[in-house]
Amino acid sequence: MRDPQQVAVVGVSGYTGLELARILLRHPAVRKPVFYLRDTAGAQCLGELFPQFRGWGDAPVKTLSLEAIAESSAGTAFLATPHEVSREIAPQLTQAGLRVVDLSGAFRFRSGATFSAWYKMEAAPEAALEQAVYGLPELYTSRISSARLIANPGCYATSVILALRPLSQAGWIAPERGIICDCKSGASGAGKELRREMQFVEVNENFRAYGLFSHRHTPEILEHTGLDGAQVMFSTHLLPLARGILSTLYIWLGEKRAAAEIEALYRKFYAGRPMVRIWPAGKLPELQHVAHTNFCDIGFALDETGERLIVVSCLDNLGKGAAGQAVQNFNHILGIEEQTALQ
Amino acid sequence: MRDPQQVAVVGVSGYTGLELARILLRHPAVRKPVFYLRDTAGAQCLGELFPQFRGWGDAPVKTLSLEAIAESSAGTAFLATPHEVSREIAPQLTQAGLRVVDLSGAFRFRSGATFSAWYKMEAAPEAALEQAVYGLPELYTSRISSARLIANPGCYATSVILALRPLSQAGWIAPERGIICDCKSGASGAGKELRREMQFVEVNENFRAYGLFSHRHTPEILEHTGLDGAQVMFSTHLLPLARGILSTLYIWLGEKRAAAEIEALYRKFYAGRPMVRIWPAGKLPELQHVAHTNFCDIGFALDETGERLIVVSCLDNLGKGAAGQAVQNFNHILGIEEQTALQ
Amino acid sequence: MRDPQQVAVVGVSGYTGLELARILLRHPAVRKPVFYLRDTAGAQCLGELFPQFRGWGDAPVKTLSLEAIAESSAGTAFLATPHEVSREIAPQLTQAGLRVVDLSGAFRFRSGATFSAWYKMEAAPEAALEQAVYGLPELYTSRISSARLIANPGCYATSVILALRPLSQAGWIAPERGIICDCKSGASGAGKELRREMQFVEVNENFRAYGLFSHRHTPEILEHTGLDGAQVMFSTHLLPLARGILSTLYIWLGEKRAAAEIEALYRKFYAGRPMVRIWPAGKLPELQHVAHTNFCDIGFALDETGERLIVVSCLDNLGKGAAGQAVQNFNHILGIEEQTALQ
Amino acid sequence: MRDPQQVAVVGVSGYTGLELARILLRHPAVRKPVFYLRDTAGAQCLGELFPQFRGWGDAPVKTLSLEAIAESSAGTAFLATPHEVSREIAPQLTQAGLRVVDLSGAFRFRSGATFSAWYKMEAAPEAALEQAVYGLPELYTSRISSARLIANPGCYATSVILALRPLSQAGWIAPERGIICDCKSGASGAGKELRREMQFVEVNENFRAYGLFSHRHTPEILEHTGLDGAQVMFSTHLLPLARGILSTLYIWLGEKRAAAEIEALYRKFYAGRPMVRIWPAGKLPELQHVAHTNFCDIGFALDETGERLIVVSCLDNLGKGAAGQAVQNFNHILGIEEQTALQ
Repeated sequence: MRDPQQVAVVGVSGYTGLELARILLRHPAVRKPVFYLRDTAGAQCLGELFPQFRGWGDAPVKTLSLEAIAESSAGTAFLATPHEVSREIAPQLTQAGLRVVDLSGAFRFRSGATFSAWYKMEAAPEAALEQAVYGLPELYTSRISSARLIANPGCYATSVILALRPLSQAGWIAPERGIICDCKSGASGAGKELRREMQFVEVNENFRAYGLFSHRHTPEILEHTGLDGAQVMFSTHLLPLARGILSTLYIWLGEKRAAAEIEALYRKFYAGRPMVRIWPAGKLPELQHVAHTNFCDIGFALDETGERLIVVSCLDNLGKGAAGQAVQNFNHILGIEEQTALQ
Repeated sequence: MRDPQQVAVVGVSGYTGLELARILLRHPAVRKPVFYLRDTAGAQCLGELFPQFRGWGDAPVKTLSLEAIAESSAGTAFLATPHEVSREIAPQLTQAGLRVVDLSGAFRFRSGATFSAWYKMEAAPEAALEQAVYGLPELYTSRISSARLIANPGCYATSVILALRPLSQAGWIAPERGIICDCKSGASGAGKELRREMQFVEVNENFRAYGLFSHRHTPEILEHTGLDGAQVMFSTHLLPLARGILSTLYIWLGEKRAAAEIEALYRKFYAGRPMVRIWPAGKLPELQHVAHTNFCDIGFALDETGERLIVVSCLDNLGKGAAGQAVQNFNHILGIEEQTALQ
Repeated sequence: MRDPQQVAVVGVSGYTGLELARILLRHPAVRKPVFYLRDTAGAQCLGELFPQFRGWGDAPVKTLSLEAIAESSAGTAFLATPHEVSREIAPQLTQAGLRVVDLSGAFRFRSGATFSAWYKMEAAPEAALEQAVYGLPELYTSRISSARLIANPGCYATSVILALRPLSQAGWIAPERGIICDCKSGASGAGKELRREMQFVEVNENFRAYGLFSHRHTPEILEHTGLDGAQVMFSTHLLPLARGILSTLYIWLGEKRAAAEIEALYRKFYAGRPMVRIWPAGKLPELQHVAHTNFCDIGFALDETGERLIVVSCLDNLGKGAAGQAVQNFNHILGIEEQTALQ
Repeated sequence: MRDPQQVAVVGVSGYTGLELARILLRHPAVRKPVFYLRDTAGAQCLGELFPQFRGWGDAPVKTLSLEAIAESSAGTAFLATPHEVSREIAPQLTQAGLRVVDLSGAFRFRSGATFSAWYKMEAAPEAALEQAVYGLPELYTSRISSARLIANPGCYATSVILALRPLSQAGWIAPERGIICDCKSGASGAGKELRREMQFVEVNENFRAYGLFSHRHTPEILEHTGLDGAQVMFSTHLLPLARGILSTLYIWLGEKRAAAEIEALYRKFYAGRPMVRIWPAGKLPELQHVAHTNFCDIGFALDETGERLIVVSCLDNLGKGAAGQAVQNFNHILGIEEQTALQ
């Protein structure tokens, strides 16, 4: 019998995996988490590999093997693995009866062609893609609760979709002008792979744009806001800090609005959703308010004419942008309060 | 007889003033610079007040007095003073026969009403405003060379105008869509005044937007790009680093263009202007490339359709954005190469 | 009837107070915490004053008044107040029957003269000083459990004492050579008071020593290690980061030792104390391992001769160095596991 | 005929090499510098390889070849190459008649055995070692002026030796107590080689000790201060910033001294040496004072007893700690003012 409260975490060594470990190790509903790595370097427990976990209990570390996971009584698997690894593993784990929360991009699109076009690699089998549910809990709660395979959203995508969806769904965005998504992320978002441009001296006291017109989170944003790609420009930048994404979004409203209307729209949309915090009109969230949390904070400024709107959306790319959101999805699987272990 | 190579620097204690000192002390055409402060605290030379200048020669420090400056043989005065101080001092110094490079906002607009509306204070007398020349040397060389009063541009404004002017002048910007200027600055841009939100712990590992729809550099940008204010959204953000501004600019082109055309337009516009560096199509400048320099680096990305353009413009807010540009203007006063002491 | 699980927090607005709030708001044994400030600016709850606490529950904020605290059923008060405020308030609160954890320096010394000499202000009344217990739980558990007034140690002092005490108590330190404590702290240790030298531009990309031969934590270190002041040099430095203290300690051992002996000495001393983590010989802790935790990590390197020892001790100055340790002391008051809410 | 003003720079791609380029490109006495790299990637000039050099003139880049250098009229070669490369190249270049400033460790010791013991590799031939002069200009001016091969000192070593040598030479250090050198460096000191622990996320908001009892700069320090290795403990730490070394040095004076005596000793020792700045008693230098300069700033605090001294020594590890000092040595070769191009 599989127990969804028993979790297997695959690929713990990246920044997302480590953050996942940090949250799951103090999650009150998690029983006996096991951490699987390609190479355990002879270690028996997490603290031997990552000294920051010494004294957090002896969470066992095992060499990655699908058989081992399948034979265990784990009911939930978190995959903090590269796209191509998730693509292979996830379907096998769901077939073995586990519920899977995948943090890669492999299952974020219903269409394999979309995936292949943006990720430049083969997509997962169609059956697996059909089974997958996009794991943005504020939008798709019920589907997530019953999903066998949850595709945890991209970090930038989460920040942009949560900010734009209430406006687009209400039809408040002028279709004939552009929508600009200028996004900035901390360095942990780039992952742990060794790269010259991620060395301290190259990021410190520096700031740069990257991925213009080519970032992989673009199709997620379009799909879940319903906006037309020709209308949107989306850019990404690298901040000299470790954690956090701040997105500045520029919108022309179709008609004149009052600030109170905008605020009310957001508040109504996210009523009862504790992980999205709407700021009072005229006050803006900052990265420090959300670092090391699972919150997405949204604030805005409306110009005097009431027609031009700037929305600011902040989250922690390892929190609500990755590991935190994965646990929020897991909480929906368990049917417990979505903020459990996330505050 | 006034000697333009003898300079008086007023208000050396802020970050801009200190950077100005750093450049002028090694400027080969500067003779006997004197630094004036409201309060010299009994110091005789710069190194006593600011230890980083010990061993740079004994540049004299004097208590600020218009009489003292007027009686000296100084021919050029740099004012790194607050708007309200520059507003009073600059006309008096020009009347005393000095040429003045003012780094405040007091003389940046022909219209006193524009100044008052954005700076919430009384404007300088009309005669002084008429006399003033906007000190962006790549645009207004000849006027600057003969100006008695040069209004050194704002840091954000410099970065945005240099990037947009070639496009707007060529008529390549679609008038019916928006133009977005998403700008990010380091903390030295906020000046040295003590403020809670500029304390290390509040800026470090943080990032935030500010001044939305209200930043004082807005009217400079509109005036010198010729764009319509209703078309432009301009935002500013605070980066957790000391020096640099990076502006990301979003433009819908009126018609399809090739990347080579865009690059050629920029190269032609800035031919013979060493302080603006155009990047080859598809490569983007970064803050580190311009920190501690007087360069403004401009690069861009054009999307596949050839209709949507993102331009990235970088400079050092204390260099090309303030003190460096002031010295570039001074070099035009002297009639020497504009990059003198700036490389 | 006073309930020790009901807590009053006085002075929540500094960095230490905010960290205390963060820990107490998720402490499973804390009931109805109330936060007292000198000026609540009309706010009713913590989230109105500090936006990072929105959505954490509506922890009430009240204007500081001893009467209000005394009339409440609060059984424990945390004082994150300046020395001179704690000095007045703490005795009154203990008389009203509360147990007090004071985070200032006011009650750290049995001798009022020592306090006055180092803090340049009047000491608390002798009766209050006698009542106070030095709140370093790894050394003084039983006294803390029954104390009415707990003087939470200084951040530097905690890091140095925990590293030196096992050696000094064992008599392993050569008396005739010096002991050097070279300590480095992040900027949050300097508190929230506005100061030029704590502005971002002054701390970022900078590093400096301060307080040489005059730091107030000196007498704490001497008293709780038993070392002779003439033998010790203690220095403090400011790191360009927010959180953490790393102390590098240089010791001449009286006689040749093996690394295994040193490690064993530390392990034995801290057996059963989960908040102090001893590193295996030859591996050294880093600030990142302890940031945002209540751990003090201790590692060391012994030279080939076995006579010269360098010990490295790390902690988070707001965690084990202040708020975390205060809660650890509180856990001893309650008689619950000392790491409750601290992992 | 070799012209010492024509320079060849070998190994320009590391942080030290780039800093060297930055200084030499504006050095008034340098003619036609040529930059040699193992792999020029088809580039013709420096600006093609390193965009920060675009617009600095078209300094030519060539594929490294001893023949090419030997056949050129270059009279001076700077080697910013790994130890094992310098070891081979330097003797060949001196034989070809060039004067060589080597920035590696290969020629810093008269004894090949010392080199091999600390660097774990074969030493250069004895003849080459004998020919080499240790390039600390404040100590060895005349030897440097006539040297064929100058071994530029290590960055930590420079900072420690300049601070200790006046005291040790005067015999003011108590021999029976210890001398502690607690040194902290920015990340550019670690070089450009890709390493996990130098990635931004690993250095940012972190601080750690490394190289305890094993750092390669140890024998340089001992040799040029004349201190006994058994007496000295030398440690190194990694700061979360790019540039700068601050060394905190702890000394027991053999007898009571006044602060004025200490200051006078230093001032006398460094009289006429502009690149070492002595701070007035009780004031301490900071990293920001020396970043991007060639200064070494020395300050100190003496305790009340007059017997315990803490000296603080600061420099830029790429400036006075490497490239700047190399150019200072070059200036001595040319017989021009030693601070030329260094201010």
